[in-house]
Amino acid sequence: MRVRIADGDDEPYAVKGTGRVEAFSDGVFAIAITLLVLDLKVPNQSPLLAGLLTQWPVYAAYLISFAFILIMWINHHWMLEHIVRVNGTFMLLNGLLLLGITVVPFPTNVVAQYVLTDDQNVATAVYTGWFLLIALFFNVLWRYASHQGRWLSQSDHDAGLARVVSARYRWGGPGYFLAFVLSFIWAPAALAMTFLLAVFYALPHEMTLPGDSPAVRHARPA
Amino acid sequence: MRVRIADGDDEPYAVKGTGRVEAFSDGVFAIAITLLVLDLKVPNQSPLLAGLLTQWPVYAAYLISFAFILIMWINHHWMLEHIVRVNGTFMLLNGLLLLGITVVPFPTNVVAQYVLTDDQNVATAVYTGWFLLIALFFNVLWRYASHQGRWLSQSDHDAGLARVVSARYRWGGPGYFLAFVLSFIWAPAALAMTFLLAVFYALPHEMTLPGDSPAVRHARPA
Amino acid sequence: MRVRIADGDDEPYAVKGTGRVEAFSDGVFAIAITLLVLDLKVPNQSPLLAGLLTQWPVYAAYLISFAFILIMWINHHWMLEHIVRVNGTFMLLNGLLLLGITVVPFPTNVVAQYVLTDDQNVATAVYTGWFLLIALFFNVLWRYASHQGRWLSQSDHDAGLARVVSARYRWGGPGYFLAFVLSFIWAPAALAMTFLLAVFYALPHEMTLPGDSPAVRHARPA
Amino acid sequence: MRVRIADGDDEPYAVKGTGRVEAFSDGVFAIAITLLVLDLKVPNQSPLLAGLLTQWPVYAAYLISFAFILIMWINHHWMLEHIVRVNGTFMLLNGLLLLGITVVPFPTNVVAQYVLTDDQNVATAVYTGWFLLIALFFNVLWRYASHQGRWLSQSDHDAGLARVVSARYRWGGPGYFLAFVLSFIWAPAALAMTFLLAVFYALPHEMTLPGDSPAVRHARPA
Repeated sequence: MRVRIADGDDEPYAVKGTGRVEAFSDGVFAIAITLLVLDLKVPNQSPLLAGLLTQWPVYAAYLISFAFILIMWINHHWMLEHIVRVNGTFMLLNGLLLLGITVVPFPTNVVAQYVLTDDQNVATAVYTGWFLLIALFFNVLWRYASHQGRWLSQSDHDAGLARVVSARYRWGGPGYFLAFVLSFIWAPAALAMTFLLAVFYALPHEMTLPGDSPAVRHARPA
Repeated sequence: MRVRIADGDDEPYAVKGTGRVEAFSDGVFAIAITLLVLDLKVPNQSPLLAGLLTQWPVYAAYLISFAFILIMWINHHWMLEHIVRVNGTFMLLNGLLLLGITVVPFPTNVVAQYVLTDDQNVATAVYTGWFLLIALFFNVLWRYASHQGRWLSQSDHDAGLARVVSARYRWGGPGYFLAFVLSFIWAPAALAMTFLLAVFYALPHEMTLPGDSPAVRHARPA
Repeated sequence: MRVRIADGDDEPYAVKGTGRVEAFSDGVFAIAITLLVLDLKVPNQSPLLAGLLTQWPVYAAYLISFAFILIMWINHHWMLEHIVRVNGTFMLLNGLLLLGITVVPFPTNVVAQYVLTDDQNVATAVYTGWFLLIALFFNVLWRYASHQGRWLSQSDHDAGLARVVSARYRWGGPGYFLAFVLSFIWAPAALAMTFLLAVFYALPHEMTLPGDSPAVRHARPA
Repeated sequence: MRVRIADGDDEPYAVKGTGRVEAFSDGVFAIAITLLVLDLKVPNQSPLLAGLLTQWPVYAAYLISFAFILIMWINHHWMLEHIVRVNGTFMLLNGLLLLGITVVPFPTNVVAQYVLTDDQNVATAVYTGWFLLIALFFNVLWRYASHQGRWLSQSDHDAGLARVVSARYRWGGPGYFLAFVLSFIWAPAALAMTFLLAVFYALPHEMTLPGDSPAVRHARPA
């Protein structure tokens, strides 16, 4: 749709549109979020109601994993919205990010199973540490793509959108690092911190951007 | 394809086409419907025929889950057909709906396993209650998108299509609520009610719209 | 791409392009074919080589399921290539076909497990019966879509392509019915018949169409 | 996007664009890479940290499978980037390649489980032998498509790109064959060889193509 890219027309051969990267990434997100349902097992305990109620940590882990993957999909979506070209290095870095995201159910289940035991600090550290890693992958991918407006559309580059998205991402690294450190001190605080960060990243972009900023107006057809 | 949207050209920055939302949703629907097959196990009982026949509740649950997810996909498909722009809030609400749909095999298996036991009321309540939730998610998503024709194409808005789709959806909430209440009184009636509603939503739109209404004619190229 | 459809411009409202039906179907095929790998388990038996060799029926079932789903995908692909519009009824019939295809690993595993036992006739009947059902679904879907050239592109309709594809499909019903009957008489012959039919449907269209027929020439840009 | 193909306009009927082949292949790659996560199980051993640490071979196998599938996706992606038309034979050959790729977690898990046992030679031979097969499938698919520039775009044909990609692929066959032979002599060397080849194929195309070669310049809009 957008055809001009920020740094002119001198892109090398091994550079192309984002269509298949989006399709592949969407596939991975969609599968990761749907596979979660395999963790829900019909209880064999009687009566049924008691069996369902004792499974609450499984349901909580399911909802949290689902919400986190959904939020990360929306943010990945916005990122690629600004990017108009990718190359092989971008695809490798994007692959690293997808690795981080597909693994999310694993640390979530670790926390669900161990949060009420003596191992709660280790479990929470695994959990927050994994999100710290994902935050780093998000930042590396975005910085690589937006460095000097490299793969951004001309209009995004002009509008300084790279700065807006970078501002959102900037909080991820220190935020999850703080949660990771808190894991060893007081696990509940670390989990609360992680959920707060998820809510922050779940906020629609339209809430975090003032309605009359250049970044908002630029995309409007004249 | 359709480019004009109902409320003019003043859409804010964080608004865009539906392509990736459709791709992601299609992926989730496709995976959810295909994962069902993992519940089909080759019987180890001898003779084979008897082993297959005693598995009939598994097959029935498979067919019902498949049919329900297919019907919901078709309705989701029609909804997005009318919508030309989405924003972050839409993506979150759509994510809620997808959560509802991916979980469908779970309450279906609960019913399959408990419908012939003393727990049939609880099992049926879980089942109908879950569909009530999905009906609410469908309505919330559609109302958000069609409110004052917000994200509809100009032609859909003019043709009053929002009213036609809303009319279809309006029955979901009360219908599944009635089924939910019936679960506690007489489980078979609750299940029958759920299947009737599924048949209603399975009816092709072309059957529920009169052939010469403006809603039908508007999309025709002049 | 092709915009004119055979029966003129009077299509009703609830009719649209095939994009999302293709995306959903491709997703289902892709998942069904990839899920097969879950049946491959690392042998725990020692020595490893003996463990691997004793698993040969699992590998054979894997290869056969994979090949059959792939062949059906290619044929589904060709069918939709000719179809330019779909409606709700088409989507339901297509859903039936997808149901048939996603279940394929189940009868295949039944045969793999029982082909060398006394239950070989029942197992083979389940297998061939299932493919008979799929053949019927393919025919119903195609007939519905191509009846009087309904959803075909104008050029396909003119070129009589409906007849060419119908000719290929025509063998499915009687062929698999014969295999089904053979199942009760001599199971190996029924399986051989099924594989022959698979090879027939695996034949690229370019081999079954003479190079200078109108059906071949029509699609060529003038 | 690119419309002219190398051998003129005389393509037969049963030839078409690559859209759905890409969609199907992307789906298969995305599912194969995401299903890997099902191998990660929360340890039940106490303390948690020890339980996690003893699972390291599972994590290593996970990372290696993920990386290999990602690298093969990127290479598949590049291959299809050059191809503008496909036919039924191409779809069958591509299906063979996808079969090879979806199975990758199986030999990887075989190695993970047996690399420290007396069966390490057999396990490594299974592993390297499978990659040899995939390398052959890649080469057959590419040769079929690029033979005399058959399905390449005119510009790729002119620029000799077929030779560039062929040069990359040429190393796969002998390389993995050497690894396969080494498996029987010294398993660690065979595994090291396989990883080296993976790194080679992970190298972005932009690193292996000189920046001012015709192959690089040709795609640039004049």
